[in-house]
Amino acid sequence: MATLLELDDPADPRLRDYRDLRDVELRKSLEGEEGLFLAEGEKVVRRALEAGFTARSFLMAPRWLDGLADLLDRSAAPCFVLPEALIEQVTGFHVHRGALASLHRRPLPGVDEVLDRARSVLVLEDVVDHTNVGAIFRCGAALGFDAVLLAPRCADPLYRRAVKVAMGTVFSVPWTRLPDWYDALPDLSSRGFTTVALTLADDARPVEEAVAGLDRVALVLGSEGHGLSSRWEQSADRRAVIPMAAGVDSLNVAAATAVACYVASRR
Amino acid sequence: MATLLELDDPADPRLRDYRDLRDVELRKSLEGEEGLFLAEGEKVVRRALEAGFTARSFLMAPRWLDGLADLLDRSAAPCFVLPEALIEQVTGFHVHRGALASLHRRPLPGVDEVLDRARSVLVLEDVVDHTNVGAIFRCGAALGFDAVLLAPRCADPLYRRAVKVAMGTVFSVPWTRLPDWYDALPDLSSRGFTTVALTLADDARPVEEAVAGLDRVALVLGSEGHGLSSRWEQSADRRAVIPMAAGVDSLNVAAATAVACYVASRR
Ligand SMILES: C[S@@+](CC[C@H](N)C(=O)[O-])C[C@H]1O[C@@H](n2cnc3c(N)ncnc32)[C@H](O)[C@@H]1O
Ligand SMILES: C[S@@+](CC[C@H](N)C(=O)[O-])C[C@H]1O[C@@H](n2cnc3c(N)ncnc32)[C@H](O)[C@@H]1O
Repeated sequence: MATLLELDDPADPRLRDYRDLRDVELRKSLEGEEGLFLAEGEKVVRRALEAGFTARSFLMAPRWLDGLADLLDRSAAPCFVLPEALIEQVTGFHVHRGALASLHRRPLPGVDEVLDRARSVLVLEDVVDHTNVGAIFRCGAALGFDAVLLAPRCADPLYRRAVKVAMGTVFSVPWTRLPDWYDALPDLSSRGFTTVALTLADDARPVEEAVAGLDRVALVLGSEGHGLSSRWEQSADRRAVIPMAAGVDSLNVAAATAVACYVASRR
Repeated sequence: MATLLELDDPADPRLRDYRDLRDVELRKSLEGEEGLFLAEGEKVVRRALEAGFTARSFLMAPRWLDGLADLLDRSAAPCFVLPEALIEQVTGFHVHRGALASLHRRPLPGVDEVLDRARSVLVLEDVVDHTNVGAIFRCGAALGFDAVLLAPRCADPLYRRAVKVAMGTVFSVPWTRLPDWYDALPDLSSRGFTTVALTLADDARPVEEAVAGLDRVALVLGSEGHGLSSRWEQSADRRAVIPMAAGVDSLNVAAATAVACYVASRR
């Protein structure tokens, strides 16, 4: 059972995992070095633990203790209890639904393991925005996608903001990093997936046509700014476009994913 | 032609329109009282002016002057020039692509005007998050929707964050507030639109089926937390669901909009 520790000093060194949550660069190095990630809000904390992640500690305002009592009962990690206003001083902003947990990361699974029995897969190249990565996971989970593969420069799905936007689906959908950027798509083809690059390229066909009748599909999406690299665009088996109204540049990558996943889910 | 004014004091009272951009509550009251809104980034500032909005002033770092020279030439508003680090002190954060403009709001058009010749319309109930509102506009514009109607409590599309996420499509897609929440949907029906509420309600049919063959369509979306009110859900002509995988609560409202707009665009 978690030990409750009532603290009153926001500078307490035991609160280190929760400090300055808005400072993305600082958090990235802290979380990387320590092998931790944060879950925010009762529902998301619950999902992380239910998915088998182990807590390092919890931090919450008194009024959230009851709602999470069953989880605290089953955890050996300390639970720091602080008034809401002091939590805000530690984290640097108002915490949504007052509860936080710091959890241990696990080693990433191999591509083989992630693709085991998968039929519909999302592959993200350099999607650098945590909100987009989170939104893409939520969407993939909702529309029946089995796995997500990330290029080396794609943003971290376990970053707090991504976890929150994903509503915890980053814990349930299998995912990993691709070890080899250059041959990532040919490698997927050799595993029996038809790789479909979502792109505005001239030779792209409408997405409905591109996925019709396929068995194993990997939908490939590009970064917010420049879209897919030419290597990925060219090494995909097919190029597909979501037809748009004249005069509009593009869809946001999460919106494009939503449409493409929907269409692919009905192939 | 805009007068260039090189300033060196971030506390200069002429910079009032640009102060504390992260303080949502403060900005809401300032922008409401003064009838202004902000555009951020070269592309978005350009789109606002091209859509006919009049600038109150500009604020930019020296290196953005060239890119916007043609627009500054045609504007009578002052352009404040400040080093990037001082701009950050005024606004409270790092400004994306260094250029800002403060623009005059215009009176909102009436519903008649917005719906004139519209065939596909989005109707948002209490979507309170500016990012979602912006994403929905971008998506509607990309997928050929002609207008957006907002319930009284829906977030402001001209709020900086919404404008930015929408990539300026809030300037080109006609929109307004609905004067009457209670009868909003029956009123649309009486104007010849079939109102289709996107919902997880038990009696909802698959969205593809719900929009098939319709001429004028109004897709109705609900708030991030609780979804549609029962009044709107019940007063819509049809209820439609985007089928989801088991165990997932819902799609984010912007993702649901993307899918629903795509499906409706192919009706
Ligand atoms: C914001 S877009 C990038 C736009 C970039 N300027 C380009 O021209 O590719 C981000 C990603 O979303 C996907 N995307 C956006 N709109 C799309 C559309 N209409 N059809 C297919 N994919 C799209 C693509 O995978 C793209 O790489
Ligand atoms: C995050 S959802 C709200 C969920 C809310 N808890 C409910 O049960 O309605 C926000 C809005 O997105 C739309 N939405 C999300 N997922 C949907 C789905 N699978 N089918 C239809 N509409 C959906 C609905 O308009 C909903 O009001």
